[in-house]
Amino acid sequence: MKINGRHYRTIWLNADGRSVEVIDQSKLPHAFETQTLSSFHDAAEAIKNMIVRGAPLIGVTGAYGLALAVADDPTDNAIETAYAELLGSRPTAVNLRWALDRLRDRLFSAPPPKRRPLAYSEAAAIAEEDIQSCHAIGEHGAAIISAAALRCPDRPVNILTHCNAGWLCAVDWGTALAPIYKAARAGIAVHVWVGETRPRNQGASLTAFELLGEAIPHAVIADNTGGHLMQHGLVDLCIVGSDRTARTGDVCNKIGTYMKALAAHDNSVPFYVALPSSTVDWRIADGLKEIQIEERDQSEVTHICGRTERGETVRVRLTPNGSPARNFGFDVTPARLVSALITERGACAANEAALQGLFPDLANFA
Amino acid sequence: MKINGRHYRTIWLNADGRSVEVIDQSKLPHAFETQTLSSFHDAAEAIKNMIVRGAPLIGVTGAYGLALAVADDPTDNAIETAYAELLGSRPTAVNLRWALDRLRDRLFSAPPPKRRPLAYSEAAAIAEEDIQSCHAIGEHGAAIISAAALRCPDRPVNILTHCNAGWLCAVDWGTALAPIYKAARAGIAVHVWVGETRPRNQGASLTAFELLGEAIPHAVIADNTGGHLMQHGLVDLCIVGSDRTARTGDVCNKIGTYMKALAAHDNSVPFYVALPSSTVDWRIADGLKEIQIEERDQSEVTHICGRTERGETVRVRLTPNGSPARNFGFDVTPARLVSALITERGACAANEAALQGLFPDLANFA
Repeated sequence: MKINGRHYRTIWLNADGRSVEVIDQSKLPHAFETQTLSSFHDAAEAIKNMIVRGAPLIGVTGAYGLALAVADDPTDNAIETAYAELLGSRPTAVNLRWALDRLRDRLFSAPPPKRRPLAYSEAAAIAEEDIQSCHAIGEHGAAIISAAALRCPDRPVNILTHCNAGWLCAVDWGTALAPIYKAARAGIAVHVWVGETRPRNQGASLTAFELLGEAIPHAVIADNTGGHLMQHGLVDLCIVGSDRTARTGDVCNKIGTYMKALAAHDNSVPFYVALPSSTVDWRIADGLKEIQIEERDQSEVTHICGRTERGETVRVRLTPNGSPARNFGFDVTPARLVSALITERGACAANEAALQGLFPDLANFA
Repeated sequence: MKINGRHYRTIWLNADGRSVEVIDQSKLPHAFETQTLSSFHDAAEAIKNMIVRGAPLIGVTGAYGLALAVADDPTDNAIETAYAELLGSRPTAVNLRWALDRLRDRLFSAPPPKRRPLAYSEAAAIAEEDIQSCHAIGEHGAAIISAAALRCPDRPVNILTHCNAGWLCAVDWGTALAPIYKAARAGIAVHVWVGETRPRNQGASLTAFELLGEAIPHAVIADNTGGHLMQHGLVDLCIVGSDRTARTGDVCNKIGTYMKALAAHDNSVPFYVALPSSTVDWRIADGLKEIQIEERDQSEVTHICGRTERGETVRVRLTPNGSPARNFGFDVTPARLVSALITERGACAANEAALQGLFPDLANFA
């Protein structure tokens, strides 16, 4: 998608055919810089230091990391060493393990001299598949926005989103924002309410930055604001992403998603969750009971980073010295509050039968 | 209440019997400083610059401002001049106008030579009445907390609050926090979840500061977190304040209150609103339709103030340059989501009959 009028992906192969370039997301939204990954160590560090973030992008970065390792040394030993270091850069990322496993299996199936081109083409394939998946989610979601636009011909469709499920966490397009990009490119007038998404502010920084780049009208709001907007008819629909989806349609997403869904339900505003099928955990039936919610460092609540007028990025304390904080990263929105899931194979009701109907091939592995 | 082990009110008469001292709340929570008000101009500036904030405290500051004017010049003209300047320091504050009207009427009923002592005693009476009202709200609310404590004898009562309805916005005790202070002093173990309350962060700064001073266990949370806590049984009850209450029990309070009430309702967590009867607007039947919600400057969303490691307070930008923000200050929680109103005359259901039953003298003016 676009930044300052130029098209970017979040990760790409450089002209040397070897090194990999990524957008340094830790500097956004205040500075746009890219970083070159020249070794698997670089890739592991980029994941660890959140230069790259978002499940799909972490997976692709891991895959390219393994390709960089193979470019240096295509032996089994070297691959295993790089695999272990890359996996250790974010041990809990399901997508990272999946991408690394896929690449390693593929590499081990070929003799060392043939592994370098294989590694790069397989990493590129993972990236392309992610783009195709996001593209499809975008098309299916845009149809929903398009239908909503018919009900308000005289004004933009107001869409509320939460956190960042945009192209910056994928390779291109994103999940929750893909339908918005597709709708906008199809000429539908949209306006996006961007919840800032404390404590890490991915909405106020990354989603706002993405929408600015695509010239899509939007307004950042405090996370407290969604309910008021919905009470006053200022939201036509909500679209959020999902970090993990139960096979019954319960959605685990960034903390705060649940209360937005409650407000949507209370005001008869449709609440959509856009997700690639890779986030569906077919083993899980009850998201609320079975998904363990990560508790993160309290400093994300007590402190915040921002840009001073002089252009310095500084970290400041918000709370009194001595007041503790708690920092739960995600919450679970029960399926009963979700109007529909928007997947790469189409939209469906948030329940087990509907998900199985769309993904009989995946559901069989439950 | 206590700060660093010493008891304070938010405003008090100095030993000179003339000047008035206030806590400089614009510096909290990072620095504790007081400011001397020596003229009605000082009082007006303190209100305008948010050195003092909170409806009851603004009213008392206005009253003392008029007393300071009278100390300089007790003529009708001088009183009218001071009245106009003080009222202009926060034109929308109902409580400020009420306090100024009360004091002016009282002063005009006496000859100029007798006005100075009258002004100071009337200002002191307004302050004392506020303390008595908060004290009574505290006692009635503490009974509710005490009953909740019986249901969890082995652990503290977990209470969620939003924004700051504590002693810093009143003279002492506060409204939503008064029951917590009273319960804690009665030996009931409590733990308070403090929503940070973006965009102005009154929870993370003022409420946390208050609870720290009273040594009440608490944790600051992002505003997104309340729903998750309630889903997991980590909140026994919610208590919030009210900026304006419809005679039917709809509550207009800091933005985000509505979504916390929805989460409480969805998880069968009692949701209480503590309020002095002075916030009840008997003319209003439907809070959602009739109460105009103030929209504030977008810079409160795009920027934030905090303390650097070197101890400087700095203001930083959070959003990308060019991304607009919207900043609605309040929302309305429908009475159907409110378990009970806690007033200075006791708790009652959030409906017109119950409010009229408690306040037949006030409801008659509807």
